[in-house]
Amino acid sequence: MPSALILIAEGTEEMEFTIAYDVLVRGGIEVKSAFVGSSETGGTQNPHGQANDSVTCSRGVKIVPEMRLPELAGGKALEYDAIVVPGGNKGAETISKNEDVTKLLGAFYAKGKVVACICAGSLAAKAAKIGKDGSITSHPSVKGELEQDYRYSEDRVVISNNLITSRGPGTAFAFSLAIVEALQGKEKRTEIEGPMILPPTL
Amino acid sequence: MPSALILIAEGTEEMEFTIAYDVLVRGGIEVKSAFVGSSETGGTQNPHGQANDSVTCSRGVKIVPEMRLPELAGGKALEYDAIVVPGGNKGAETISKNEDVTKLLGAFYAKGKVVACICAGSLAAKAAKIGKDGSITSHPSVKGELEQDYRYSEDRVVISNNLITSRGPGTAFAFSLAIVEALQGKEKRTEIEGPMILPPTL
Repeated sequence: MPSALILIAEGTEEMEFTIAYDVLVRGGIEVKSAFVGSSETGGTQNPHGQANDSVTCSRGVKIVPEMRLPELAGGKALEYDAIVVPGGNKGAETISKNEDVTKLLGAFYAKGKVVACICAGSLAAKAAKIGKDGSITSHPSVKGELEQDYRYSEDRVVISNNLITSRGPGTAFAFSLAIVEALQGKEKRTEIEGPMILPPTL
Repeated sequence: MPSALILIAEGTEEMEFTIAYDVLVRGGIEVKSAFVGSSETGGTQNPHGQANDSVTCSRGVKIVPEMRLPELAGGKALEYDAIVVPGGNKGAETISKNEDVTKLLGAFYAKGKVVACICAGSLAAKAAKIGKDGSITSHPSVKGELEQDYRYSEDRVVISNNLITSRGPGTAFAFSLAIVEALQGKEKRTEIEGPMILPPTL
């Protein structure tokens, strides 16, 4: 069974996190979430100063992550087949500035594993210096921070080698299904689309 | 500021819950979530036997609700302008069978407040005996339980008096925007659509 690690921080966009998590599970992928704090606190604490607490997402939904990032030290993170970075401005900023994350994204990309970033989460790809000169997309609000280093596309999902990027909550189904297709194939993707009653065009 | 109460139980579909919560907040609506347990335990406990714990949704995302339903006894629930019932088979079953919920939905509907149900959540409308002989939709998997009592529609969002129903995770954006439009008007709906980068047809 392929596996995916999805990152979450205070201010993560809860729709992007939840749609990715849920659609990947529907796609037969084992999904685990890891909390990312700021590097200064060792990445172990949220702003409330408590470990293993819930994370308050961008519009107030409170989600309990399964792990904290430091628990994956020593190469454990690289046992996963894919890593997913959701957006939400504040969450994406914390994730992009965490050096453990940028090292991890670099290692995933170098090993040919899937690195998937949506919305402002694409800033983490830039911070990790991966896929440079390839194609990328993001939420329009952070386009200006990416177009110098990448061929910027306004497609809803962009696949450039093993970097998959997308634009916002409204593209999160298409983004998540692209990850399912990359890990499990086209047939699995088609199988799970029906019961979700998706729009005619994603 | 209009307000909405969104119900959550063990097994609630996390995409439907999260999309409704987030889109309503974007629409300038004050949103609170209330945990619904089974009637037998007084609705205060989840299967782990702990109150105020996180709820494990249908695909494993753990969400912390803001209240438990009994905290809204004595008419406090009716201070909200809308009530939202997400799907997920197991969650919708718990919610539909809880007598406090069915009484509440009946009271909301009778007062002309918005009652919004998505996916298997539409079974709660039937259990509350509201909107009978009007139009309804739901996840296709529970169509057979609704078509005797309602004019069953396969439209992605159905508005019948003050009952708004919808079909599944893939229709959750359209559903949530219909609630925003009902509470805040068409202009607000249009304002929040752009930044979410929604598909061309919902």
